[in-house]
Amino acid sequence: MSRIDVEWLGRDLLGKWADERLGGRAKAADPKYQRILNQTMEDHRDRVMGQMHELAADGAVRAAFPESAGGDSNHGGNIAAFAELFLADPSLQIKAGVQYGLFGAAILHLGTADHHERLLPDVASFKIPGAFAMTEKGHGSDVAAIGTTATYDADAQEFVIHTPYPGAKKEFLGNAALHGQAAVVFAQLITQGVNHGVHAFYVPVRTPEGELLDGIVAHDDGFKNGLNGIDNGGFTFTNVRIPRHDLLNRYGAVDADGTYSSTIDSPGRRFFTMLGTLVQGRVSLDGSAVVASKAALSIAIRYALQRRQFNQSSDEKEELLLDYRSHQRRLFTRLAKTYAMSYSHEVLLRKFDGVFSGAEDTPESREDLETLAAGLKSLSTWHGLDTLQEAREACGGAGYMGENRFGSWYEDLDIYTTFEGDNTVLLQLVGKRLLGDFSKQFKGASAASLAQFAAKEFAGRAAAQVGLHVVRQDMHDMGNPARAARELRNTKWQTELFEDRIEVMVADIAGRLRKAPRDDKAKAAAMFNDEQNQLLEVARAWAELQQLNAFNAALERMPEATRKIMTYVRDLFAMTMIESHSGWYQANGLLSGQRAKAVTSTIERLLQRIRPHAEDLVDAFGYGDDILRAPIATQAEGKRQAEAMAHYSELRESGDLPVTEKELRAKAKAEEKARAKEVAAAS
Amino acid sequence: MSRIDVEWLGRDLLGKWADERLGGRAKAADPKYQRILNQTMEDHRDRVMGQMHELAADGAVRAAFPESAGGDSNHGGNIAAFAELFLADPSLQIKAGVQYGLFGAAILHLGTADHHERLLPDVASFKIPGAFAMTEKGHGSDVAAIGTTATYDADAQEFVIHTPYPGAKKEFLGNAALHGQAAVVFAQLITQGVNHGVHAFYVPVRTPEGELLDGIVAHDDGFKNGLNGIDNGGFTFTNVRIPRHDLLNRYGAVDADGTYSSTIDSPGRRFFTMLGTLVQGRVSLDGSAVVASKAALSIAIRYALQRRQFNQSSDEKEELLLDYRSHQRRLFTRLAKTYAMSYSHEVLLRKFDGVFSGAEDTPESREDLETLAAGLKSLSTWHGLDTLQEAREACGGAGYMGENRFGSWYEDLDIYTTFEGDNTVLLQLVGKRLLGDFSKQFKGASAASLAQFAAKEFAGRAAAQVGLHVVRQDMHDMGNPARAARELRNTKWQTELFEDRIEVMVADIAGRLRKAPRDDKAKAAAMFNDEQNQLLEVARAWAELQQLNAFNAALERMPEATRKIMTYVRDLFAMTMIESHSGWYQANGLLSGQRAKAVTSTIERLLQRIRPHAEDLVDAFGYGDDILRAPIATQAEGKRQAEAMAHYSELRESGDLPVTEKELRAKAKAEEKARAKEVAAAS
Repeated sequence: MSRIDVEWLGRDLLGKWADERLGGRAKAADPKYQRILNQTMEDHRDRVMGQMHELAADGAVRAAFPESAGGDSNHGGNIAAFAELFLADPSLQIKAGVQYGLFGAAILHLGTADHHERLLPDVASFKIPGAFAMTEKGHGSDVAAIGTTATYDADAQEFVIHTPYPGAKKEFLGNAALHGQAAVVFAQLITQGVNHGVHAFYVPVRTPEGELLDGIVAHDDGFKNGLNGIDNGGFTFTNVRIPRHDLLNRYGAVDADGTYSSTIDSPGRRFFTMLGTLVQGRVSLDGSAVVASKAALSIAIRYALQRRQFNQSSDEKEELLLDYRSHQRRLFTRLAKTYAMSYSHEVLLRKFDGVFSGAEDTPESREDLETLAAGLKSLSTWHGLDTLQEAREACGGAGYMGENRFGSWYEDLDIYTTFEGDNTVLLQLVGKRLLGDFSKQFKGASAASLAQFAAKEFAGRAAAQVGLHVVRQDMHDMGNPARAARELRNTKWQTELFEDRIEVMVADIAGRLRKAPRDDKAKAAAMFNDEQNQLLEVARAWAELQQLNAFNAALERMPEATRKIMTYVRDLFAMTMIESHSGWYQANGLLSGQRAKAVTSTIERLLQRIRPHAEDLVDAFGYGDDILRAPIATQAEGKRQAEAMAHYSELRESGDLPVTEKELRAKAKAEEKARAKEVAAAS
Repeated sequence: MSRIDVEWLGRDLLGKWADERLGGRAKAADPKYQRILNQTMEDHRDRVMGQMHELAADGAVRAAFPESAGGDSNHGGNIAAFAELFLADPSLQIKAGVQYGLFGAAILHLGTADHHERLLPDVASFKIPGAFAMTEKGHGSDVAAIGTTATYDADAQEFVIHTPYPGAKKEFLGNAALHGQAAVVFAQLITQGVNHGVHAFYVPVRTPEGELLDGIVAHDDGFKNGLNGIDNGGFTFTNVRIPRHDLLNRYGAVDADGTYSSTIDSPGRRFFTMLGTLVQGRVSLDGSAVVASKAALSIAIRYALQRRQFNQSSDEKEELLLDYRSHQRRLFTRLAKTYAMSYSHEVLLRKFDGVFSGAEDTPESREDLETLAAGLKSLSTWHGLDTLQEAREACGGAGYMGENRFGSWYEDLDIYTTFEGDNTVLLQLVGKRLLGDFSKQFKGASAASLAQFAAKEFAGRAAAQVGLHVVRQDMHDMGNPARAARELRNTKWQTELFEDRIEVMVADIAGRLRKAPRDDKAKAAAMFNDEQNQLLEVARAWAELQQLNAFNAALERMPEATRKIMTYVRDLFAMTMIESHSGWYQANGLLSGQRAKAVTSTIERLLQRIRPHAEDLVDAFGYGDDILRAPIATQAEGKRQAEAMAHYSELRESGDLPVTEKELRAKAKAEEKARAKEVAAAS
């Protein structure tokens, strides 16, 4: 039997920034950074605050900063290390994310040389803990609509930061309730009577002793569903004055006299460019969700390889949980998705590093990066929750014990689905981009006529495919299930099926939207709203294709035996996705009924093929007992089951195992039968 | 426009035991029973222990007990009240469940008159807190395989309770770590050298002062993912002696000399009869999950009716979250399922009361009850988690605040999916029952030949249907989408589709299993394992049919206007289920591609139809602010949004709203255009 080269696969999974990732992993294995369960929120906050100082002293967390602030502008490596920190304590990870990835990164990316020199060193050393004050009580996803104002006073050469109504209070900010001494505050920049839209300002909020500065009121969000090691809260500003030079002025500046200038002419594009610099949060959450999924599956699969329950196939020995086909389906389908997401995360990470290092920094590559981050982060954070829950249940009551980790990870990861961009909102961005790209294909003619043309074109193509595809599939498969199964496992066939789904859906949506009036905003919005669920669906489909492509690219570089087995895993990923969209595929004539059934039976066969490699597949993730810290993932359960079996064997051998009533009855019945036979023979 | 009669619907939803349910709800609204967040496990346990004494003094919790123990044998009412207790604190609910529904109920249902008289009054008054010691470290779902032994010593007329190896330690028991003074211990009953299988024994474990009795060691499970108000833990017994009369001997007794006797001859049936008395746990978890879902949707929908984000359709006003089609799909599809589950729970509750009150207590009705409880409990507890998570995300960051409840409910409800019967194991029981019923249809011939016959018969029928169904559907719908939509909303059509799915799946499985060898246990088990995922799928399908049937029965009793709107909700439930199985339906020829597409578009239309009634639909659940205690479900958010709008209106009217750069640019552009026009006209 072929076997996976676990060492090779493990090294490949570490990716381009293997050393940095291993560095992050070493921290996760260090007790001083690890979470202690059953602390009150207050104690947990104190502990994490202490850990932050240790992290700062260690220095690795500021890798993305320039050398002047103690870093080495290593954007990719920084995120690789950061993602692994999830396994120490997600509260520590996110508090570090607030300081370095949001507060610090905003100064880095929205500020200029002066800010970097003046401000970054104290951010890097954690001398100045800071908050990232973007979200308001009234506006989270719709950042452009925030209410806080920064009005320029030319006489004083100061900006006046103000909260004009209660809904404009800054809210849900890490470091706001207790520890923040400064904040990057997002506000509407108003100068010379004109509102130039949202800009970021550096605003001191507390003294080093923790006293709030004049005009600033802070509130504490208190106990949350998770991440209680972070002091989330908010600020209300009452005419707080800051010097002109504390506007972070990379994309928009104000002269002493109040004249506004920007390198980006369009206010809309300027806003999105500023927000775009914050994409690293999404990249890192995508990585963290993959880490969480890998860890959860490592625990659940290792447990299922020891735990036995019910004797189905023999009277003496119970079955391993992982030999149940339902257990395999629950865990292996998620394992396959996790591999796909791990490979697509690495693609995203490299793209991110390319843009932020400047190596491949173009408006197009930035846009691509943002779209990819939005799509992947949404799917992986949802997948992380789904996997944690399934893994927990797959371990039964033992999975519910705090020491086995699933629960606290779940509570913490929960918010990853809606912060740094709400998943639903992010998917909508992806969907809009797909629609935009679709119309761009037809440059030249007017937008309306083009959309009409395109819709007809594609609708026609899709309609034509209906018959063709299915007939072709049925002819190909006729009376030859093996041939059908082979075709299902064909890389090109799978990829085209994923692609066709996107093309047909986008064309369908565009076709229906072609009648949207350009002059009636309300009606156009209503028509767009009618398509919202379909748009989200096509965005998911697009992100799934990126995962498949990344998996396929990874297969190409694998040594042969490993590739053979990993191709089963890729197939399981592809079949699982196709099965979940099987209704759509059939209704749109891209999959025959016969072949749809073959997808399900192929999944069953793949589960069996993957079963002997399950341990290797989680070993390659590289998480040992020191990081997982889950007693059920150690060998304790296997030892217990062996003890129980030994106990009964011993009793059986010594003749001390009491006969069961059931056995007695069976024996009596057999004897009676034999007697009846004798009587019959005698008569 | 028709409107729901909210009062009528609310009363109907309270069900047969409305008073008891309202009594439970009053407790959930009473601060003394409510959970305080951010307590340590130790403080939370103390608080819940105190609440237990209050509950006992109140008396309602022992309603199912006989009059001699302060109850009135009100089985249905007891569970109705119990389910609502979830909203006070699930830890309190489950600690009460351990005492009254497990420990007490085992004495009631497995013991006889002597036990009831001697033991129940102190259980009822909570003078004796008790544990239900069934699960062991090594065996949870497979209760028949537990290792603890109870060996009869005829000389002393005592049973010796013993833990023979570490894996046989009792585990995960509420009241075991600290508070339990006695336990009902499940153990293999051995007398006169014969093991008669699992029986229950009443075993004192601690003095009233909390000292463990001789031979008993307790351990503490410590911090769990949730339910930390309960002191879960376990016991190890070393030759602990209890008097003969403390065997709970309703289904199996031992004479002084050690002779075993039972009213049930077959050891297998005896075991399942004993376990069957514990079905009330599953019934109550089904009810609790429905309560949790209703509460979560009440909060999320009320918030979405106030919260606004993004101005899509006008420049001045932002959209209500609930007007987004994606938000409607996320919440209304779950609302429809919750209604279906609420109606099916009431059916289950009545069946349960019928059996346990003795009014309809036959072996058949007991078996039906167990199957129904297994199916409904599995689907509703999973649905509860899914709904809590979706509702949390639908409220964004606000949903993550502890005060808004979703998180703590989620953590607590999590374990409901795997305790009192692991959902996957329960669904397998349902599936086996369906297979069994299928073969019973063909009594007379030998089992093997029957299965063969049946498989052929049904496979033929299914095959014939493929063409027929789809052709009939396409002919019916041809060029007439309205007619197709009408058909989709037809009760009979929906019901038959649900039914056909079950029939075809069962026949398919039976057909494949017909070749399973009767004499090769290992091979038969392997073949059965091959079908496990399909068996779980058909069990789900069966439970979904029960939900649909219960919903339809409820529609029949509704006043007309209410029925009209509730029929939309039923349709949404049916369409959502059909859409999720659309791939299977099409591949099996029960749904045409055209109609599969119509299912999705019908869902979109139903969302719009239900939208105006969303508030009524959650109001009918009857949960006010005193019970929900979620600040986002009050009117605070609406007030904030109104304030913000008023602020901008005022600025606009007074001329103090700064013009935006965007507006300036648009104006400049328009002026330029006009100038160009003038120039052109002049030239």
